[in-house]
Amino acid sequence: MIVVVTPNPAVDVTYRVDEQRIGTTQRVRSVERRPGGKGLNVARVLAAEGAPTHSVLPLGGTSGTWVADAVSALGLPSTAVPVPGETRTTVTVVDDLAHPTMFGEPGPTVPAAAWHLVDEAVRTALDEAVHAARDRSTALVVSGSLPAGTPPDVVTPWITDAVATGALVVADVSGPALLAAADAGATVCKPNREELAEATGCADERDGALELLRRGAGTVVVSRGSEGIAAHTADAVLEVPAVPGVTGNPTGAGDAATAGLVLAMSRGADLATALRTAAAFGAAAVLRPVAGEIDHHAAHRFTTDLETSRSHA
Amino acid sequence: MIVVVTPNPAVDVTYRVDEQRIGTTQRVRSVERRPGGKGLNVARVLAAEGAPTHSVLPLGGTSGTWVADAVSALGLPSTAVPVPGETRTTVTVVDDLAHPTMFGEPGPTVPAAAWHLVDEAVRTALDEAVHAARDRSTALVVSGSLPAGTPPDVVTPWITDAVATGALVVADVSGPALLAAADAGATVCKPNREELAEATGCADERDGALELLRRGAGTVVVSRGSEGIAAHTADAVLEVPAVPGVTGNPTGAGDAATAGLVLAMSRGADLATALRTAAAFGAAAVLRPVAGEIDHHAAHRFTTDLETSRSHA
Repeated sequence: MIVVVTPNPAVDVTYRVDEQRIGTTQRVRSVERRPGGKGLNVARVLAAEGAPTHSVLPLGGTSGTWVADAVSALGLPSTAVPVPGETRTTVTVVDDLAHPTMFGEPGPTVPAAAWHLVDEAVRTALDEAVHAARDRSTALVVSGSLPAGTPPDVVTPWITDAVATGALVVADVSGPALLAAADAGATVCKPNREELAEATGCADERDGALELLRRGAGTVVVSRGSEGIAAHTADAVLEVPAVPGVTGNPTGAGDAATAGLVLAMSRGADLATALRTAAAFGAAAVLRPVAGEIDHHAAHRFTTDLETSRSHA
Repeated sequence: MIVVVTPNPAVDVTYRVDEQRIGTTQRVRSVERRPGGKGLNVARVLAAEGAPTHSVLPLGGTSGTWVADAVSALGLPSTAVPVPGETRTTVTVVDDLAHPTMFGEPGPTVPAAAWHLVDEAVRTALDEAVHAARDRSTALVVSGSLPAGTPPDVVTPWITDAVATGALVVADVSGPALLAAADAGATVCKPNREELAEATGCADERDGALELLRRGAGTVVVSRGSEGIAAHTADAVLEVPAVPGVTGNPTGAGDAATAGLVLAMSRGADLATALRTAAAFGAAAVLRPVAGEIDHHAAHRFTTDLETSRSHA
């Protein structure tokens, strides 16, 4: 069982218009609404690959109700923790002429008391996961932004509780929350290069990774976009290149990589295999038009084809 | 009691951003959500002026629930008729640099069975209004667009039922629905100039008005924007100029004018007085930053100040 926390879920809305033009009234030709937030993308990929998941979602208002209903309709088990205010909406405007324009709401202000309810929901889900599976395949994924104004250490109890139960923890968070996740002893911190540099203040990837390791992270996995993915431990760097020649929709590729990583690790794979699985899942997500899905056969072919290189640091 | 039908209500969302730019990710600095749709603006102005109203609102999905809750929070009595799908959202993006950009969703597809429930809700509200007030002050307002794909004659039973009970009917609708409202014998059809030309195919305002009168409308009131407002009957045209020197937010000015018109007529005013009230309410709406509100004192001062001119046609 993999418990997935999405601290700041969203209603992801896509508007298709004929031509984006500022200062006009635009007729929306089609509307798509999906439950969004990075953790939900991770959970969807995991569920599609047959891994049992349980999502923990702080949700508020009628948009929160919409997300809860949509997650349920996707067949994803979840605990909705009620929070004040309205769950955020993101609106992405697309046409066939220009790059998409994305409008991101800040999200609700979640008070400490509501975060304590999230702590309890995570603990309950972890307890159930541990009791259900005694094979140490329990994992916790914390993925995505925190609502604006949230203290970064809200992630701490989730991670320390999971570590205490012997669960694997993968944290894909950014900013001060990434440092808090490392401090709390996350098994894997998984930033991209920009997030790693921004959180640690280190321009050099290896230096940034060493800072997270020094703080307590077990491994630091860094997404390098079109340059592949790397895993840093104290004495080595493993690297897997990107799958060549894959084009499509990169949205959600990083979340699919997180799903591949945690799936392989929770099934006992070594780090090199887990890293190849992450790269393969990321590439297989690019082949699908929407975030939260991967091309299953491509993912498994890519995992076999990729090679890992190792350097001792 | 004034029964107000809003055939296609909306969640009106306003996003403030630093600078509108196509193809970028834009952080939304503030989010405002209001229940929208022209009829709701009319009902809010009427209620603020002390006229009892009852709104009939086809609403669907979680956004429909949001509208119902928000309308209730405004203290507006209403009947929510459940429809399949999601009530539409409009997103208006504003900054301090360019004109606002508005994205309008098409709205849900409302099946005939749901429109029959709206018919029943309108009939029930009219019956209650007529029984509550035996002074012939009952009115029906039908205001705003129909959801995409709706047959224009959905407005017919609302109007014929109201006419049969002796109620005054003001129809502010467009396209084929404007013709249907005239055919059904609406006391007043209230298009703007562009809507009148588009619906009737007549470039000349008087010709278009005569076409609606020939079909069965009692009076045709035409909003002329900054050029004022006119009322056409078979043998005369009454004209009221716009209130001079009023600047501000024109959104909802036409709805305030509708409210002024129906309020005056339902209180027994003659057509010239009703037309001045309409012009005054429209101008008084421009003084308020949001649609659905008017500057009460300005409205009454303007009503006194305006003069009506009459030409025999």
